[in-house]
Amino acid sequence: MGRKSIFKTLTLATILILFACYAFFNTFKLAESEIPIASRENLISSPSNSAPVKIYMYDLPRKFTLGVIKSYATARGGLKGPLTYPGNQHSAEWYLFSDLTREGRVGSPVTRVLDPEEADVFYVPFFSSLSLVVNPIRPGNGEVQKGLVYSDEEMQEGLIQWLEEQGYWRRNNGWDHVFVCQDPNALYKVVERVKNGVLLLSDFGRLGGNQASLVKDVILPYSHRIRSFDGDVGVESRKSLLFFMGNRYRKEGGKVRNLLFQILENEDDVTIKHGAQSRESRRAASQGMHTSKFCLHPAGDTPSACRLFDAIVSLCVPVIVSDYIELPFEDVIDYRKIAVFVDTKSAVKPGYLIKLLRGVSTERILKFQQELKKVKRYFEYEDPNGTVNEIWRQVSQKLPLIKLMINRDKRIVTRDLPEPDCSCLCSNQSGIDTIL
Amino acid sequence: MGRKSIFKTLTLATILILFACYAFFNTFKLAESEIPIASRENLISSPSNSAPVKIYMYDLPRKFTLGVIKSYATARGGLKGPLTYPGNQHSAEWYLFSDLTREGRVGSPVTRVLDPEEADVFYVPFFSSLSLVVNPIRPGNGEVQKGLVYSDEEMQEGLIQWLEEQGYWRRNNGWDHVFVCQDPNALYKVVERVKNGVLLLSDFGRLGGNQASLVKDVILPYSHRIRSFDGDVGVESRKSLLFFMGNRYRKEGGKVRNLLFQILENEDDVTIKHGAQSRESRRAASQGMHTSKFCLHPAGDTPSACRLFDAIVSLCVPVIVSDYIELPFEDVIDYRKIAVFVDTKSAVKPGYLIKLLRGVSTERILKFQQELKKVKRYFEYEDPNGTVNEIWRQVSQKLPLIKLMINRDKRIVTRDLPEPDCSCLCSNQSGIDTIL
Repeated sequence: MGRKSIFKTLTLATILILFACYAFFNTFKLAESEIPIASRENLISSPSNSAPVKIYMYDLPRKFTLGVIKSYATARGGLKGPLTYPGNQHSAEWYLFSDLTREGRVGSPVTRVLDPEEADVFYVPFFSSLSLVVNPIRPGNGEVQKGLVYSDEEMQEGLIQWLEEQGYWRRNNGWDHVFVCQDPNALYKVVERVKNGVLLLSDFGRLGGNQASLVKDVILPYSHRIRSFDGDVGVESRKSLLFFMGNRYRKEGGKVRNLLFQILENEDDVTIKHGAQSRESRRAASQGMHTSKFCLHPAGDTPSACRLFDAIVSLCVPVIVSDYIELPFEDVIDYRKIAVFVDTKSAVKPGYLIKLLRGVSTERILKFQQELKKVKRYFEYEDPNGTVNEIWRQVSQKLPLIKLMINRDKRIVTRDLPEPDCSCLCSNQSGIDTIL
Repeated sequence: MGRKSIFKTLTLATILILFACYAFFNTFKLAESEIPIASRENLISSPSNSAPVKIYMYDLPRKFTLGVIKSYATARGGLKGPLTYPGNQHSAEWYLFSDLTREGRVGSPVTRVLDPEEADVFYVPFFSSLSLVVNPIRPGNGEVQKGLVYSDEEMQEGLIQWLEEQGYWRRNNGWDHVFVCQDPNALYKVVERVKNGVLLLSDFGRLGGNQASLVKDVILPYSHRIRSFDGDVGVESRKSLLFFMGNRYRKEGGKVRNLLFQILENEDDVTIKHGAQSRESRRAASQGMHTSKFCLHPAGDTPSACRLFDAIVSLCVPVIVSDYIELPFEDVIDYRKIAVFVDTKSAVKPGYLIKLLRGVSTERILKFQQELKKVKRYFEYEDPNGTVNEIWRQVSQKLPLIKLMINRDKRIVTRDLPEPDCSCLCSNQSGIDTIL
């Protein structure tokens, strides 16, 4: 045997051994990928609720989904171009629907299933917020009489009728159904009938404590309406102390607005302007929010408003004057790190707010901005790891309580209850004047 | 080069290559194990709440834990042998403490951390149920005056004093603290001060709706007091239709017991006996529950009782006559599959219960027994994948609400609330007479 043949043998042996090693290595890899996901997770961590929640989206009659967009366009002179959801602050319904419809969903906290029998929860994708505003203004009497007018109330009733024909709806008293009703008035006519479900909403303003709650439901952020600020933290380009632009006159809790205007409109470093929604005012608001240190968020007709989310994506520190506000994703976001809270009574004392904000150091403002940057993605509906994923994660977390209520409801016997059968989580916090 | 040296070269090369492959393979393994758990899970599935919840067990002064066992023994003539928790139905406190103390905890839904800074939740391992019964009977006046007597109330007050010195207790208003108080009277003197915490209890009987609830707390099973039935499903060896042994006279909801005795004690295929807890009566109860098809579970002073869990581990179908009962782990256990529910009003109608149970087919009983077998492990505190793991899993599921309440509490401003600040989950189920 010559040197060459020794080398040949060695080379061959090496190749064979390498191949064997490769095969061996791959056997392990393959074996692992064949374990069902739930068990694979057990290998790594706890046997707790790790498997992604399975969601079934109802194939609703088209009139409840894309048909609403069409009706909206028709009422405004017809579709111009392809069917697209009109830009507005209540577009969660569109993003959630699109997400579940999308091919190749990965990294989502919920897995879409096409067989309802496999589902943990059922999503009802009615565009309830857009449906509310399909008619641009009050339609003429003639149109109403001719039945030509889109009727949101009829749509709501129609949805319930359709649901009541579904076995899965009746099966568990609706506890495992998820509805989106982001506009405070969405589904108003039928909310009493869907209240067992998980409601995705921005506000409890119009709902009773037995219809919606932090425990049962999920608070959604509004879609921000002005463009995000892409710059870095800093105060150099933010000369204005406080910015607000919006409707000066509101009902109920929103009455604080007029009072705030009165005490703030003569301050030099404050921009406070009355203005309605329009493309132009949005542009002005973007400009204002991107160049101010703080952005005022007073209550509107209900405690929430999209301005908060505009401020967040603008890295403009929100100053929240809305005593009853509930905030999205508060289990993962500590809002004290990104916003200033002031109770209404203090906020309307002349000089109080201005003195408070002028006293905040630059260092502190930068800290707020850094924190705002960290949580910004939670308020970006279009971020692949943004709002939509977080909403589904929140829905997933409801599953144990959903299952508990389903099982418990079915075995409850007749009894005399002195008060409603409620299980509550109560805060005994007496409240603070301001958090700064 | 001879044949031998060729073989030597080949062997050496093979060894080297195998070693290289091994190193290569291990590099991958190591690299994977270095990724933090949360990210590793992201590689596999959803980014949802998969990481095991981290629990910190307080190193309480010994008098609150093992010291209680010692006091209990001392009050009964001193320790005989090693320090062991006395057998009783409220021994969850012992099992949970032992579990967290145990070396090499794997497969648990919670990870014990030794640094409180890392913890998601804090476990306070006071043996509150044993503490209640340390004194066998009322102590003599002389002993009380000498201060020689164990005082549970002083222990409770002492615990709060100790807690109030802990920064982690004050930090989040107690929301992230976990207390075990399985006896309906455990912690009664201080429950108002620990009510923000997650309470592990068997009953809401003595607590207000703002102190404890299905949403905030975890319902525990009692430890079963009779031995498990290890046999298979079947009715051949179960000649008795219905079995009950226990106290005939109880307060409040438990008054139903005397009525049930009256209507059942003359039935041929029913065994219903008045009897107090004792080793002998437990033996008789084991015998009775292992040879009966159904086991009666009437309310006691409070809606729950350990008899239910004795019945379950005996594969004796529980007949629950306790209108306000709450059941452990009801998100994962559908009790209609393992028990018969009858409302009190119907149950005390002469003939009703007997007729109902006699009408159940053997097939149906076998189905019940099969389901009982499936869920039995949830009621075995000593099963490595039994009650203890399930309790921790339930605690883990509270984490999102705990975090929400912690964050929310800290930013709530002063406001006028017309009613308490509660978030509820309400059942609108009007109830059914019986489920069979």
